[in-house]
Amino acid sequence: MKKIMNTADTFVRDTMEGIIAAHGDQIALLDGDHQVLVRAGGPTPGRVGIVTAGGSGHLPLFLGYVGGGMLDGCAVGEVFASPSAEKMASMIRACDSGAGVLALYGNYNGDVFNFEMACEDVEFDDVATRQVRVRDDVASSPADRAEKRRGVAGLVLAYKIAGAAADRMMSLDEITEVTERALANIRSMGVALSPCIVPKVGTPGFSIAEDEIEIGMGIHGEAGIEVRPMMTAEEIADLLLAKIREDMPLAAGDEVSVLVNGLGSTPLEEQYILYRTAHRILGELGVDVVRPQVGEFATSMEMAGLSLTVMKLDAELKELLLAPASTPFYTNANR
Amino acid sequence: MKKIMNTADTFVRDTMEGIIAAHGDQIALLDGDHQVLVRAGGPTPGRVGIVTAGGSGHLPLFLGYVGGGMLDGCAVGEVFASPSAEKMASMIRACDSGAGVLALYGNYNGDVFNFEMACEDVEFDDVATRQVRVRDDVASSPADRAEKRRGVAGLVLAYKIAGAAADRMMSLDEITEVTERALANIRSMGVALSPCIVPKVGTPGFSIAEDEIEIGMGIHGEAGIEVRPMMTAEEIADLLLAKIREDMPLAAGDEVSVLVNGLGSTPLEEQYILYRTAHRILGELGVDVVRPQVGEFATSMEMAGLSLTVMKLDAELKELLLAPASTPFYTNANR
Repeated sequence: MKKIMNTADTFVRDTMEGIIAAHGDQIALLDGDHQVLVRAGGPTPGRVGIVTAGGSGHLPLFLGYVGGGMLDGCAVGEVFASPSAEKMASMIRACDSGAGVLALYGNYNGDVFNFEMACEDVEFDDVATRQVRVRDDVASSPADRAEKRRGVAGLVLAYKIAGAAADRMMSLDEITEVTERALANIRSMGVALSPCIVPKVGTPGFSIAEDEIEIGMGIHGEAGIEVRPMMTAEEIADLLLAKIREDMPLAAGDEVSVLVNGLGSTPLEEQYILYRTAHRILGELGVDVVRPQVGEFATSMEMAGLSLTVMKLDAELKELLLAPASTPFYTNANR
Repeated sequence: MKKIMNTADTFVRDTMEGIIAAHGDQIALLDGDHQVLVRAGGPTPGRVGIVTAGGSGHLPLFLGYVGGGMLDGCAVGEVFASPSAEKMASMIRACDSGAGVLALYGNYNGDVFNFEMACEDVEFDDVATRQVRVRDDVASSPADRAEKRRGVAGLVLAYKIAGAAADRMMSLDEITEVTERALANIRSMGVALSPCIVPKVGTPGFSIAEDEIEIGMGIHGEAGIEVRPMMTAEEIADLLLAKIREDMPLAAGDEVSVLVNGLGSTPLEEQYILYRTAHRILGELGVDVVRPQVGEFATSMEMAGLSLTVMKLDAELKELLLAPASTPFYTNANR
């Protein structure tokens, strides 16, 4: 196994120590716990706290979005594993300044279970919480069971919306409402070309043939909906957008934001080649693209592949999307 | 070959079209030429133009640094190939607002040859030019032939310094001087774990055994100085810093900036694991790190590996490094 690491057992701890060494001016470990990260300086008085959690191995997801205009805290687990309810509860308490806390996270069983427990736990301390589960991956479950879908790169847009809403000092219920409205307008769909290697396992958990592409694979290697012979970038863009549009129709005059997300080892060049066609197709439909984003936002370590996320905008969502943000891994400098 | 592309022949053109589709508010093609990129809105009157050029396949290098606070123009060639002198000359003319143009580029034969011709060519139009060649890769040539060294991730720091100096309305000679001084204080050293695939070739140009690491490999796969059995992150950080310090001694009280650069498919987690040790070693030496940067700044498509760049700072270089910048691929929001 060719990973630049010390030992598989210290992979997450060493990563967190490196992140704090580099960005300690912006983010801090809560009470020295290397699995709980909060904004340096603590929560803003009167502002609703926005927190998340998830397994390691997806940088910049999840912790990369802790910072100005986005998240107040993030609990991380081992690679591809949920952190404990106890750590989530400590984080929620630390991120409450009296206005309550929104737990905004991907719809995975471990995270759901642990956040449920954590939110119950902090009730005893009179911390008001709401939970919003991101479930943007259209490939992970059909439309009639959309509540079972997993969260993927749409998480980043959800963090952006919720964080900007919190910056406006909206109430916990208002932020929950606008974030749910954003999610009703966010869909993602991805393809994978190669597996990734969990450090403690040391070998790929699955394989994809050299001339094949897996449509709809999840960011932990969850099986997709179909394996096809390798496709061109135009065919991939066309397919991803078609699957998204089947689930969320787009019409002339709509405004959307688009996020192309590299899963790990797919070069930025290829991500832009994909974006080129997505942009053209949306243009032909009369759909306007606002603030497109192309890069690595939610990875699976060295997995090759990418996902496409489309978010339909209304006036409020657009303003929240364009509001400033500044975290160690994400800057929206409002040009 | 598993690349998300349409055809190898259109790889660069399709990439550029995707980039312009996404970032046309900040950057533009010069006269529709998909190999010459300039800032939207053209050069700032009275400000010295800063331009670069290089082969494709290294995103965000080279063109990703065209924008506020950094470059005015960039000519790109096919994958790993220099653009023509003619395109460079067009770019230089377009980026001159009367104060002259600095050509700041990596020390590769093709780029050197073509920029020499281009600078001669624009003399006839009374465009004053200076050339500065970035040669930060200590592995590429020994210290007694340092003028033959290649430019790698240190290019990004050089762009940052020169662009900030130009923003201060310094003269062409002053900018050349401060950029050369920056380069005298910048050293890089890298390792590679896997090859990359040039689209028109379709197969890797070399291989690295599954249990080996190549020390000092160049960003086009130029042979390194040594192949070793796979090392731990601590051993790699120690080796890279030792090679850099042999060439540029560091002493207690020095201030440096550090850039860890992923070459393509090495996950961000592993880059931070490497940074962790570099930070610790520098701390033990009494060296202060200012604005560390970790991520993909100069890649070789899907090559696995990373490089470490150290820049020794003086008061002026530090100010220029920390000055604001905003390009589609690089934001320094001056937190």
